[in-house]
Amino acid sequence: MDHIDNYFKERRSVRKFMDREVPDSMIDSIIERAMKAPTTGNMQLYTVVISREEEALEKLRPLHFNQPASMGAKALLTVCADFNRFSRWCEVSGAVPGYDNFLSFISAMLDATIFAQQIVTIAETEGLGTCYLGTVTYNADQISDILELPDMVVPVACIALGWPEDEGEATERLSLEAVRCFEKYPKFSDDEVKRLYVAKDDYPANAKYVKENHKESLAQVFTDIRYPKAMNEEFSMRFLELLKQKRFL
Amino acid sequence: MDHIDNYFKERRSVRKFMDREVPDSMIDSIIERAMKAPTTGNMQLYTVVISREEEALEKLRPLHFNQPASMGAKALLTVCADFNRFSRWCEVSGAVPGYDNFLSFISAMLDATIFAQQIVTIAETEGLGTCYLGTVTYNADQISDILELPDMVVPVACIALGWPEDEGEATERLSLEAVRCFEKYPKFSDDEVKRLYVAKDDYPANAKYVKENHKESLAQVFTDIRYPKAMNEEFSMRFLELLKQKRFL
Repeated sequence: MDHIDNYFKERRSVRKFMDREVPDSMIDSIIERAMKAPTTGNMQLYTVVISREEEALEKLRPLHFNQPASMGAKALLTVCADFNRFSRWCEVSGAVPGYDNFLSFISAMLDATIFAQQIVTIAETEGLGTCYLGTVTYNADQISDILELPDMVVPVACIALGWPEDEGEATERLSLEAVRCFEKYPKFSDDEVKRLYVAKDDYPANAKYVKENHKESLAQVFTDIRYPKAMNEEFSMRFLELLKQKRFL
Repeated sequence: MDHIDNYFKERRSVRKFMDREVPDSMIDSIIERAMKAPTTGNMQLYTVVISREEEALEKLRPLHFNQPASMGAKALLTVCADFNRFSRWCEVSGAVPGYDNFLSFISAMLDATIFAQQIVTIAETEGLGTCYLGTVTYNADQISDILELPDMVVPVACIALGWPEDEGEATERLSLEAVRCFEKYPKFSDDEVKRLYVAKDDYPANAKYVKENHKESLAQVFTDIRYPKAMNEEFSMRFLELLKQKRFL
């Protein structure tokens, strides 16, 4: 499978989309194949809500901070961890479901994320462009209201989908030794950690961010601007609150 | 991409493996490609620990309840949500990391799961067989000790890997209308929920489970035997405790 081998080596996320429809039948065909992805005990603990209508997209985009990928996408696919449907099946089958707990959320989040990534891979091998919107977990509470998600359904991934306008931005990755190890977690010294990230620090686009943001290091761009502590804590509180509301905590 | 199209339609998890080595170079090549999977802000918040040595496998298998897939696998790949490496890079770069919170765990779990699923897909397209061991989240605390995982590193997925001995078991899936909707979450009536699961209830292998377990419905096999409430609650408590220990809560 040479084509597919190259695909995996070269794939990129796409943030600029053409003004060209993605037919519902194409989305359905992608989802139908993605449903063959592995799932916990074959329970399929996920639901995908497809937002296509302009009115819905106008409400969702600001909750995704109007990220470029959210603006031109022809569809936003919000993939939810879902123990509602399964629990209701239990109830109508004379069984007493016991899935109002954190482990069940974790299982459903795994199922939903595996399913989402299968959608991404299939869509990309068909020539579509995709980009995950991580913001879905930041504003999961408000997104949940817009999509009218019931108990035990929590959005965990959002995929912006469309025909690529460009080939996507190249990004650097860490070396293999940084992310995989044998038998035990590696005990890197400070110098070794520095070395693992040298290529990232030196990557031209990253060096440019540092300068533009008047920071001393790329890491400071992450800690002070992109993913600051106060923001993470605020969104943590809101996400935990949502898990309580949805009965997973 | 006809081959790949068929692959997605027909893929199955594999639980029986041949007694044939999977070379380290092959695993590395799979992981290297999987590292091109999407990741939050290109932070690559994951680490995969590869267990190959018999001594390690003997400790891990019981924690996976000696599941068939764990027994014959030539490697167990434990994929961890990891904010440790990134935080250490921040520290050695004069930045103050703020990732000791729940949202950061969620981001890292998403990254790790997407990465895991990319490993599964690439491995399977190369002819290997895989099976997720959901038990990794049940005994995450003990697995964490065996793999010597530090702060802010939590196992979330485990992939059993090997050359398939058989083609894997066929499993039924829900219909498209059960798992995907447009614009809003669907309001199914009880009868509609029943109908969505009729094919699952009637599937011969499932009907056999019900009989063997002396239950009245397939749902009862799930609620009373496979995923009972008391077990879910016990593992929820332990997983939450682990998140606290690892400073994500």
